[in-house]
Amino acid sequence: MKITLAQINPIVGDIDGNKEKIIAAAQQSKGSSLVVFPELSLCGFPPYNLLGYSDFIERCEKAVDEIAERCDTIPLLIGAPVRNNSGKGKPLFNAAVFLHQDKRQIFKKKYFNMSRHRGDVSTFESDYFEPTDETNILQLGCMKVAVTIGEDLYNVGDDEFLMTNRIDDFEEKPEIIVNLAADRFDYQRADKRKEILRMTALKHEIPLIYVNQVGANANLIYDGGSMVFGYMGYVIKSLPFFEEEISTFDCELFISMKREDNQVIPPKMELIHDALVLGIRDFFRKQGFKKAVLGLSGGLDSALVIALAAKALGPENVMGILMPSQYSSDHSVTDAIASAENLGCQYHIVPIKTAYDAFEETLKPIFKDLPFDVTEENLQARIRGTIVMAMSNKFGNILLNTSNKSEASVGYGTLYGDLCGSLSVIGDLYKTEAFELCRYINRDKEIIPWHTINKPPSAELRPNQQDTDSLPDYPVLDAILYQHIELSKSAEEIIEQGFDEVVVNKVMKMVYRNDFKRFQIAPVLAISPKPFAMREMPIVKK
Amino acid sequence: MKITLAQINPIVGDIDGNKEKIIAAAQQSKGSSLVVFPELSLCGFPPYNLLGYSDFIERCEKAVDEIAERCDTIPLLIGAPVRNNSGKGKPLFNAAVFLHQDKRQIFKKKYFNMSRHRGDVSTFESDYFEPTDETNILQLGCMKVAVTIGEDLYNVGDDEFLMTNRIDDFEEKPEIIVNLAADRFDYQRADKRKEILRMTALKHEIPLIYVNQVGANANLIYDGGSMVFGYMGYVIKSLPFFEEEISTFDCELFISMKREDNQVIPPKMELIHDALVLGIRDFFRKQGFKKAVLGLSGGLDSALVIALAAKALGPENVMGILMPSQYSSDHSVTDAIASAENLGCQYHIVPIKTAYDAFEETLKPIFKDLPFDVTEENLQARIRGTIVMAMSNKFGNILLNTSNKSEASVGYGTLYGDLCGSLSVIGDLYKTEAFELCRYINRDKEIIPWHTINKPPSAELRPNQQDTDSLPDYPVLDAILYQHIELSKSAEEIIEQGFDEVVVNKVMKMVYRNDFKRFQIAPVLAISPKPFAMREMPIVKK
Repeated sequence: MKITLAQINPIVGDIDGNKEKIIAAAQQSKGSSLVVFPELSLCGFPPYNLLGYSDFIERCEKAVDEIAERCDTIPLLIGAPVRNNSGKGKPLFNAAVFLHQDKRQIFKKKYFNMSRHRGDVSTFESDYFEPTDETNILQLGCMKVAVTIGEDLYNVGDDEFLMTNRIDDFEEKPEIIVNLAADRFDYQRADKRKEILRMTALKHEIPLIYVNQVGANANLIYDGGSMVFGYMGYVIKSLPFFEEEISTFDCELFISMKREDNQVIPPKMELIHDALVLGIRDFFRKQGFKKAVLGLSGGLDSALVIALAAKALGPENVMGILMPSQYSSDHSVTDAIASAENLGCQYHIVPIKTAYDAFEETLKPIFKDLPFDVTEENLQARIRGTIVMAMSNKFGNILLNTSNKSEASVGYGTLYGDLCGSLSVIGDLYKTEAFELCRYINRDKEIIPWHTINKPPSAELRPNQQDTDSLPDYPVLDAILYQHIELSKSAEEIIEQGFDEVVVNKVMKMVYRNDFKRFQIAPVLAISPKPFAMREMPIVKK
Repeated sequence: MKITLAQINPIVGDIDGNKEKIIAAAQQSKGSSLVVFPELSLCGFPPYNLLGYSDFIERCEKAVDEIAERCDTIPLLIGAPVRNNSGKGKPLFNAAVFLHQDKRQIFKKKYFNMSRHRGDVSTFESDYFEPTDETNILQLGCMKVAVTIGEDLYNVGDDEFLMTNRIDDFEEKPEIIVNLAADRFDYQRADKRKEILRMTALKHEIPLIYVNQVGANANLIYDGGSMVFGYMGYVIKSLPFFEEEISTFDCELFISMKREDNQVIPPKMELIHDALVLGIRDFFRKQGFKKAVLGLSGGLDSALVIALAAKALGPENVMGILMPSQYSSDHSVTDAIASAENLGCQYHIVPIKTAYDAFEETLKPIFKDLPFDVTEENLQARIRGTIVMAMSNKFGNILLNTSNKSEASVGYGTLYGDLCGSLSVIGDLYKTEAFELCRYINRDKEIIPWHTINKPPSAELRPNQQDTDSLPDYPVLDAILYQHIELSKSAEEIIEQGFDEVVVNKVMKMVYRNDFKRFQIAPVLAISPKPFAMREMPIVKK
């Protein structure tokens, strides 16, 4: 018996396009006893409040009918929203629909405990989907297949804070477990996910087929990495990360005695690199955009973003704008030019002095002789924001934001200035991680100018300014932030670990004061377990 | 027996300040048999992910101990997070803590069905709070009091989509129901809430005491309006909307035979007006800010916002900035001046021509002879944004945003231009509602210049521009938007109602294309049942 894993990259809301993608995958899998697609892949995940529109659901229903008709000889298991006609509970089910000839069977997600594992701040699933307690058994020839969706398979451990395992509820033991997933990427996730699934397979001594969505939808990146576990709990078949793939395997493999995983998880920086490239590429491709623009300061962050963008979109589609001021050092211009030229990207030099002088003149009657302060620093950043947005408007290029997570944490950035942009590429990377990613990109040859990587970071908004004038050294800052944001440690607990009390309290204050800035930042490509988008904080608080 | 309703306005995270507020309210209620506070009022609602920090919970616990000690002769029921020490489930309970002398009793929220009624997109409640099935009975002298929290009292109808009622579970019938709430304002909510509570009181034939939080926390406004229902299901006692009040009543009132509500709900525009004034006031007060700045275009939106801000903060604390261009009409300057002078607010005139010319000169080498387009329109808006932000930085005034919901819906506004600001005051009001609110404010005398209200709306970004060049008339636009956003109707369903097909499809396209702009807007004071903040939509979609 052969089963196909269809690791596809759907577009949210593009029901027709996703339908054609499903049909194409099915037709290239003729002869399979089952073709499995990811969770909600007919409408794309996450659909959010599109689920609240009845025409959206109708279009899904029609697409299911059309798939059933056009692929009637191929047994399919597709993820789709299905109406709850019982008159009780939420309006929909998050379902896996089995289609074969005249047969149609609906399997529903249980939702043990809403939103715990998705790590997402959205409530759309609990708003629209009714949980089920039905036993999901698909009879496939002589095989009983347990059909599960996403978190149905969590938890397998003894941690009562997590969910119980769906398979625990089954009275009849199935011969195979299938899981349709849309599990977002973070740099620890592939490891964690594999261990959870492996423990499920081992606990029940049942082979397990896991099919995950691939592709990026705004800030959320899905990494694919679908896999099959044999009786021994080892991965006997794995699909690539960050790429679509339709792949068929023979169930005879289940009994493989090889005590070795057939899935190699790349190291952290490679994962992050590939995730960000996919994140940029899908952000543009799925919205029909081709070209990007960004400000090039000569610093590390913008040099990193242009390198990632050139990889994702092609260097011919990425334009850098250098906007030097009287405070810019010579090397910032030469480094910025080198970062574009190394990649073969177009660049323009647009000095900001004329505009800066004009604002000074305009505001002089009100500001009079008040001293230079953060106002004038922000003014420079906002003039630059206005220039890159003008380039974006005039040439139809999408502006990429170049802020990092360290800056976003402490509010070291100007709203409507360097915080402009439609997509934040490295806003979930601490500065020290950005350094590391640059070194990864340069592992074989200099792509990002080494001088950019090695010089002390500076915003260059006043004479001889360095980031360390206002912030601790980045390794210290990032260590404190990691403790506080990723590990939810309080100031006291961090100080107990040996960090300087004054520094920790200063950093905490900056983090707490800048929720209003983070609120207005573009979607940030999420690569960590705790991106700011999933850490909701009150803006007004004491 | 006397019971006190303590309708207080806590600050999120300000545990010490809230504790003192609770103690003060208790001490002025000596002689009461019970003083009831709103849901989670010790930490303020919503606390979001502050709940994830152990020091935050510790500080709450210490505050409870101190309240118990300092108010030991006064029986109190306070809303606070309480640790779940069972080792099972989520780490906390959303609790009502009863304190009296040595007695301490914890009542927990049931959470029938997460997030359905809050209408909120946040998952913090399901992330942190374990639901309970315990029966919450407080023995108060000879009276059994059922203690319920927030949505515990929904639903009372037959609508299976909603929740069942907590009181249905009680084996012993209580003599009084108490509900600690933090139920956000919308312009329909006071009516809906009263009907739900009344039906509960009538169904069980039990008097009901409802204590709601008052005050605004960023975008969310809590309207208070606490009340007591007697046996007959009528409101026998009511507290004001939008104000703190500590008020004691005698339980003998329960048996009142008056067939008339002692709560008058003001009409829609009065509610919205008072909500927005409280929203602005608390946004400033709770963050320690005093002064506001905003751009005055001479149009209706900015004239409305300055009037609301002057009411909330005092005219001496609000500064208007007029930023005319070559496209500004004469009346836009005179109207803008009148709107500030009518209120007694300071204003400055800062023409944008010098800065505009400087950007034109700066960009000329790249733009060459490309024609005037949306780039130059946005440029004007962004120069204005930069100027008002410079004023904000230099003088420490907070920038108020003046966009309305119609504009936000169709993306009629410039990111980093007129969409700048720390708080969007009227971003949840359709343009036609903004008109109506102006007329309400002018009901006794001209506060907002009538000419501003009556002239055709224009962005004045190109010669003789009017909003109707790009948009349908506002009454038509708003009717379509209301159908789509508030009532979740599809294009097809709206066209069926008789709206022009071309217009509807154009509007839908604009709504769907502008999620990226709405994503970056400041917090919007929520006054409708469907503010954009609670309508999560994919940004990347087809």
